[in-house]
Amino acid sequence: MSITATQGDSIYLRAYDDYEHHTLKLTACSQAGMRHFAWRARSTQALERRIMAIKSTGLGIGWNDGDLGHGPAYEFRSPDGHLIELYFETEKYRCTPSDQSALKNTASKFPGKGINVRRIDHLNLFANDVRAFRDFHLTNLGGIMSETIVNNLNDMHPQAVWFMVNSKSYDLAVTHDALGMKGRFHHVTYAANSREEVLIAADICLENGIQIETGPHKHTIQQTFFLYVYEPGGNRVEIANTTARLITDPDHKTVVWTLEERKKGQAWGLPTISTFHTRGTPMPETISEA
Amino acid sequence: MSITATQGDSIYLRAYDDYEHHTLKLTACSQAGMRHFAWRARSTQALERRIMAIKSTGLGIGWNDGDLGHGPAYEFRSPDGHLIELYFETEKYRCTPSDQSALKNTASKFPGKGINVRRIDHLNLFANDVRAFRDFHLTNLGGIMSETIVNNLNDMHPQAVWFMVNSKSYDLAVTHDALGMKGRFHHVTYAANSREEVLIAADICLENGIQIETGPHKHTIQQTFFLYVYEPGGNRVEIANTTARLITDPDHKTVVWTLEERKKGQAWGLPTISTFHTRGTPMPETISEA
Amino acid sequence: MSITATQGDSIYLRAYDDYEHHTLKLTACSQAGMRHFAWRARSTQALERRIMAIKSTGLGIGWNDGDLGHGPAYEFRSPDGHLIELYFETEKYRCTPSDQSALKNTASKFPGKGINVRRIDHLNLFANDVRAFRDFHLTNLGGIMSETIVNNLNDMHPQAVWFMVNSKSYDLAVTHDALGMKGRFHHVTYAANSREEVLIAADICLENGIQIETGPHKHTIQQTFFLYVYEPGGNRVEIANTTARLITDPDHKTVVWTLEERKKGQAWGLPTISTFHTRGTPMPETISEA
Amino acid sequence: MSITATQGDSIYLRAYDDYEHHTLKLTACSQAGMRHFAWRARSTQALERRIMAIKSTGLGIGWNDGDLGHGPAYEFRSPDGHLIELYFETEKYRCTPSDQSALKNTASKFPGKGINVRRIDHLNLFANDVRAFRDFHLTNLGGIMSETIVNNLNDMHPQAVWFMVNSKSYDLAVTHDALGMKGRFHHVTYAANSREEVLIAADICLENGIQIETGPHKHTIQQTFFLYVYEPGGNRVEIANTTARLITDPDHKTVVWTLEERKKGQAWGLPTISTFHTRGTPMPETISEA
Repeated sequence: MSITATQGDSIYLRAYDDYEHHTLKLTACSQAGMRHFAWRARSTQALERRIMAIKSTGLGIGWNDGDLGHGPAYEFRSPDGHLIELYFETEKYRCTPSDQSALKNTASKFPGKGINVRRIDHLNLFANDVRAFRDFHLTNLGGIMSETIVNNLNDMHPQAVWFMVNSKSYDLAVTHDALGMKGRFHHVTYAANSREEVLIAADICLENGIQIETGPHKHTIQQTFFLYVYEPGGNRVEIANTTARLITDPDHKTVVWTLEERKKGQAWGLPTISTFHTRGTPMPETISEA
Repeated sequence: MSITATQGDSIYLRAYDDYEHHTLKLTACSQAGMRHFAWRARSTQALERRIMAIKSTGLGIGWNDGDLGHGPAYEFRSPDGHLIELYFETEKYRCTPSDQSALKNTASKFPGKGINVRRIDHLNLFANDVRAFRDFHLTNLGGIMSETIVNNLNDMHPQAVWFMVNSKSYDLAVTHDALGMKGRFHHVTYAANSREEVLIAADICLENGIQIETGPHKHTIQQTFFLYVYEPGGNRVEIANTTARLITDPDHKTVVWTLEERKKGQAWGLPTISTFHTRGTPMPETISEA
Repeated sequence: MSITATQGDSIYLRAYDDYEHHTLKLTACSQAGMRHFAWRARSTQALERRIMAIKSTGLGIGWNDGDLGHGPAYEFRSPDGHLIELYFETEKYRCTPSDQSALKNTASKFPGKGINVRRIDHLNLFANDVRAFRDFHLTNLGGIMSETIVNNLNDMHPQAVWFMVNSKSYDLAVTHDALGMKGRFHHVTYAANSREEVLIAADICLENGIQIETGPHKHTIQQTFFLYVYEPGGNRVEIANTTARLITDPDHKTVVWTLEERKKGQAWGLPTISTFHTRGTPMPETISEA
Repeated sequence: MSITATQGDSIYLRAYDDYEHHTLKLTACSQAGMRHFAWRARSTQALERRIMAIKSTGLGIGWNDGDLGHGPAYEFRSPDGHLIELYFETEKYRCTPSDQSALKNTASKFPGKGINVRRIDHLNLFANDVRAFRDFHLTNLGGIMSETIVNNLNDMHPQAVWFMVNSKSYDLAVTHDALGMKGRFHHVTYAANSREEVLIAADICLENGIQIETGPHKHTIQQTFFLYVYEPGGNRVEIANTTARLITDPDHKTVVWTLEERKKGQAWGLPTISTFHTRGTPMPETISEA
């Protein structure tokens, strides 16, 4: 990650091949968590269609003036309370002489420093009501639900959902918050170029006192090779590589997993760490302090 | 690659995570080359729209009855003469007990034998008239031209084009045939899970007498980590890994390279092998024999 | 692994770059375990010196006639009861036409099938009395103790020891048997060419019903990237890669770890699996049956 | 590489797991080249034995007072004129608080910056008279000649030799200088942890204007996965990974290659670059200037 800009209490960051001005905005705060996340629509027409749909649900808030790096954005709430923005006008990243790549099909040069993540990959939210989020999302924002966890094959109540809007097998995941809280953040994921680079990332975290929660290992669901760490502020960050997996079938049928299957743990047998189900941000103890 | 079916003089093959019945059909023939390739449309409506557009160009041929693994297909010619099919109805691959994956989000199990390619990645054609192919394709089939080589920035005549229809940075490439022949095949590419697996593929080719044309190395254009080999029949096959690169910008602006830039060779300095510009199939000498 | 020979109830196996006739001999038996392991001396003179030393301890047994692949061997017992052989005369592996490598500096060709381990790496034994084993080994067989685990820095009683006889950081490890049994086998390790190949090995095990005990992950001690599995007969096998680590310092000072440090788990935080301390072969339940 | 010390016109460097104070000393000079290289003996006794042998050849020079990081060294000339030192007393690297590894079996922490080479691997010299160097080396310094190139199987005159003194398959290589000059330097090699890291190194060189001479690719001889670059001063540096290859056979028989075989190029078919045979340092043009 490199810093694109700083403004007030905020710094704006991006991975080396992210095409936009930034993909992460960090703002100083007394507690960890996500203030909002944003989707970029595919066109102004698509943006208008989505806003119209959202307005009809009563969850719309209204337009803001945009931010560094993107134009006006429409704000709304997920049924679980997450603040979300939709925008289309964006500022493509403009290299400085020092980070211009030798390859003009790369947004900026391979940094060769720290964990060299290539691009933002996906976002994972906690939700108290996964079903409500799912139905709202598929109805109003579209995309495909590539995989899901349900209670069992008779009780299809969702415990987790994964949505895709391009050929990656997921761009947004929503997981049940075992603490029953609403609107929390689970993690943001940046993609490394290879599994080897995820292993190197683990060494870099080890050598620099970054707390590893679990991994590197391979998820059963979505097959991602993952490493979960906590950034110093307390949010979970994932460094991941999906090998060559893509979903290109426009007919893709949602892969359904049961809680029973989930209990088997990760692909190579690593038990899923218990904090995965409970640790979201903000954390209850910091909320009371805040 | 594994064999899905054999019928008459043909065998049908797929990579382990290809979702369709097959992605490659090999038919015994006295000379190498590609009889046809096919696009799957995103829906029946999309299929109808594309066929209507193609018919208006006079390059349409008509419907056939389909083949093992897919329904009826509409046949047409590219302006350069390549035979192309469009279809929507397809048969998803159904595992046998012996190739069922332990992960139900994989089309079949990781084979652990030979070069374990995951999925078909792209096709590369030779064309005598790249401009005509490009214009026909963008007008009638859509997609985005992600990168191109032109003579120079004053003479934008195209020498090569790369088209994308999903988040991969290309699904079809068309390159100028330096022999001036029409409608030839350049190569088909299958994706391996990592660059390490491309290196392993090179060892497997070395140990089994499969002729390596060039690589492994990294392309400047498209950045793909590649290995080109000739299959025993004489067609070029590429084993590739694109690391984590995707193009997710709906506004993506075509990256333009000049012939001058192309002469610099591959990303890390390997000169582009001369046969890359001349060897297509069928080969002239086999045509005269055939 | 490939089979070099079969004889009676035994099959002889080797990795593709093992220089000897075999590095593993499997013999049908009603229970899992290790009948013996063998060291090759560096010369006939070295062999004689070691035998003389062993005889003086009273643990020597005597010469046998050798086996397929190696000449006469001197048998003795470790203080914990493991049967060990020492030999020098060996038969280098002779390729067959079908496994001759294209590279004449490789013992046989890269197989491109299953888990393509390159060479035997090390052996790990359980011992009831680690100290006795350590002292016997260093006194009579030489080598360097590269790392050790002791109770604590005041009580240097060893819980585990790692010996090296070449530039690899260990060739033999001896770990305390938490069941208090004598002379058991812990695991044998074969080296893969890369960490990526260890990850691929995990997928191959997953897809073929081979039970993964733990990993892939990185050991804190010795830094090895490891995967532990149980072969169908019940013995533990490790697939490992040590990255580029070697110990070339003739003055190498033993790295000392405490039990307290060991409790922190593996390098990236994976807790050491409890079976690591108890599961050896033969297993108590099979002994009673045998 | 990190800087251990600077003194006068010199800086001292090491890779992150090199156990000594430094493995490279760079001194400002008007031309590129190697002033001397040094072997560490295995013990003071071994040092004495080697010095006695060298003195008997008339190529000995005498003792110097040592340098930062090591004790007194005995200087001598190779038959080709290279200045060589032998020493035993050395200073182990002592971490500073900022480069202390979390793993106490690593000499310093994984840097996570630039090309993260682990350790010095080997040195390659040019010689006008390879045979004289070879005979001098094997007679007076010992070790094993693991591989060699000879004119042909009838004329065993050596064109190149590779010597090993531990389990790595070579620590010193000597290649015929096609310019017929004496005593030149060819390259020094540092080992990266994986082939993937060699590929990453190529990207780092590409992005930072470091000239790549050839690679990444796999050598036929010795099988090393290599990348050759020129450092800004003009010397060739290799970043390499040997996968899991080691030679542990005390009986290892030299692998003999012919010039005919060498002409086939590298393992996967890359032609050997012509500068490999002619470019050494100092370069003739800089000598006349100097």
